[in-house]
Amino acid sequence: MRTEPTDAPEPDLRHHGDAEVRDAGAGLTDLAVNVRADTPPSWLREEIAASLSSLAAYPDGRAARAAVAGRHGLPVERVLLTAGAAEAFVLLARALKVRRPVVVHPQFTEPEAALRDAGHSVDRVLLRERDGFRLDPPAVPEDADLVVIGNPTNPTSVLHPARTVAGLARPGRTLVVDEAFMDAVPGERESLAGRTDVPGLVVLRSLTKTWGLAGLRIGYVLASPEIIAELERAQPLWPVSTPALAAARACVTPRALAEAGHAAHRIAGDRAHLVAGLRSLASRGVRVAEPAEGPFVLVRMPGAAGVRRRLRDLGYAVRRGDTFPGLGEDWVRLAVRDRATVNGFLRALSAALAPGG
Amino acid sequence: MRTEPTDAPEPDLRHHGDAEVRDAGAGLTDLAVNVRADTPPSWLREEIAASLSSLAAYPDGRAARAAVAGRHGLPVERVLLTAGAAEAFVLLARALKVRRPVVVHPQFTEPEAALRDAGHSVDRVLLRERDGFRLDPPAVPEDADLVVIGNPTNPTSVLHPARTVAGLARPGRTLVVDEAFMDAVPGERESLAGRTDVPGLVVLRSLTKTWGLAGLRIGYVLASPEIIAELERAQPLWPVSTPALAAARACVTPRALAEAGHAAHRIAGDRAHLVAGLRSLASRGVRVAEPAEGPFVLVRMPGAAGVRRRLRDLGYAVRRGDTFPGLGEDWVRLAVRDRATVNGFLRALSAALAPGG
Repeated sequence: MRTEPTDAPEPDLRHHGDAEVRDAGAGLTDLAVNVRADTPPSWLREEIAASLSSLAAYPDGRAARAAVAGRHGLPVERVLLTAGAAEAFVLLARALKVRRPVVVHPQFTEPEAALRDAGHSVDRVLLRERDGFRLDPPAVPEDADLVVIGNPTNPTSVLHPARTVAGLARPGRTLVVDEAFMDAVPGERESLAGRTDVPGLVVLRSLTKTWGLAGLRIGYVLASPEIIAELERAQPLWPVSTPALAAARACVTPRALAEAGHAAHRIAGDRAHLVAGLRSLASRGVRVAEPAEGPFVLVRMPGAAGVRRRLRDLGYAVRRGDTFPGLGEDWVRLAVRDRATVNGFLRALSAALAPGG
Repeated sequence: MRTEPTDAPEPDLRHHGDAEVRDAGAGLTDLAVNVRADTPPSWLREEIAASLSSLAAYPDGRAARAAVAGRHGLPVERVLLTAGAAEAFVLLARALKVRRPVVVHPQFTEPEAALRDAGHSVDRVLLRERDGFRLDPPAVPEDADLVVIGNPTNPTSVLHPARTVAGLARPGRTLVVDEAFMDAVPGERESLAGRTDVPGLVVLRSLTKTWGLAGLRIGYVLASPEIIAELERAQPLWPVSTPALAAARACVTPRALAEAGHAAHRIAGDRAHLVAGLRSLASRGVRVAEPAEGPFVLVRMPGAAGVRRRLRDLGYAVRRGDTFPGLGEDWVRLAVRDRATVNGFLRALSAALAPGG
């Protein structure tokens, strides 16, 4: 673990998996974007479609906010609905008074990009492969007054213990935990959502990945009433659309939570299948970051750029890893898919790996 | 016309017409919210519903941006899609380097609220009833480096000449013209949209009012490529949802523009009917701000607060005027509705006016 990179060229923090699918045109099997396959389910699409009949009215977010608060056992003053987690990152970067923000990498790059765009200089704590990308709390500078960490972390798929993450809290520090993928972890173990005993805690949640709502822009922030009020003041009027509000209400019902829990268990099984297949390619230089606990895995392979290119020719899109600070050009991230898709992908990967590798 | 108010209590800039309908519960005939009745039309709802099948993918705004640019004869670099005009006000307030912003009132209060929230102190130019709320350019301070004006203006319904508005441009000044209601003006005469010869011009447009998409959050900014790039940098990733992008594309087709033009002419006829009815109540103290050119009219009447209360009891919601800087408690704003609705409203208003008034 080290603070600040040294020599590597600066990665493009604004690169995201959607570009890898989009720019290739249709027809690729998508292992690049971390959205659950076959989503949104038809019952959810119907709930959203029903909301279209009231589009002429301005959005009224009160019922959705109350529903989300109830799902986490929190008062509404601790909840803010946002136009996706991306908006939450911008609000945090712009609304909070921060002197020394620190982002724990490798992780989703948007928090750092939003902080830089808001004029902050951002320090990085870089977790290392040799440590299994596990968090070593002493590496976080004591005077950091904003710390951003993902759990489970995108792209490493590491699930940090809740206790270790909560231990990063300090008086005068805002601790932002991006739990965008926590609902894909069985039992949401290690989640800090709903906790009110961790000072300065900000938990970000997404409905995008599990429910296939990337196009709808809906997520939420859980934090103290004071922080929520600060973020809310920086939001535009009517920040979340009526269809997105309908989706938020629909996704926190007991039925939806049960379906998400079921999906999390299925993902764990599919991920085990994917990891086993990748391990079988160890002799050809393939290394999986383990244990993987999110709906994606981080994989190291020699000549990854060429492998990616050949995989595209074979019909598969994977996420490049070199745009994540702390990773080099040998890394790719793979979304977990069903076994049939994984089997096809593994055959393609075997063909795409450098000959004789 | 004067700069800065003197004695009146500070109005609530965050009050909007939706609250007057929302908090009253269902059942009120709504003349408070400036959204066209019977919208969105079914063909538009169907276009939006069709987009729900691709919600799992992140929004790709390129086609909608190109369509909007084409509608105004501009290159895409001069167009930014936003999550409603409300987001545009926040972006302008936060992204632009501004020392002395000036807002021309009475007008929609959100631009000033967004500027204040971003830490600016805002000067006001107050147009006066005795001048017909017409713009007198010399009243705008020469050193203002950001000037915000609405055209047609909400709530006065005054349509300023394009030449007069463009004449506010200065080297080093950003001139923001909120044209949220311009598509309800037949021929969009006096619009500055599509003009590239006015330095520092920023035109804001909305699809919310004419098309009944208040719940969807979609609008756009037209400006120089340099200003657009600055605003875009302050936007979150994926700022506009997939359904909103579908709506934007659908609302700038020749067919949609023809329908909007037809609606604008119908609104002009309905507005003339409303204004004639209000004039007939002149002996009871009712005064209409004229000429009204938007899809709403501003009306002065003695004891307006009591009249509003009695109108609610009679089933009608109207927009209070006292939250607009420069207007007092005697003002209300009325959305233009069809003749049958207007006739019912005028009967209710006659009953609600102070007895013997």
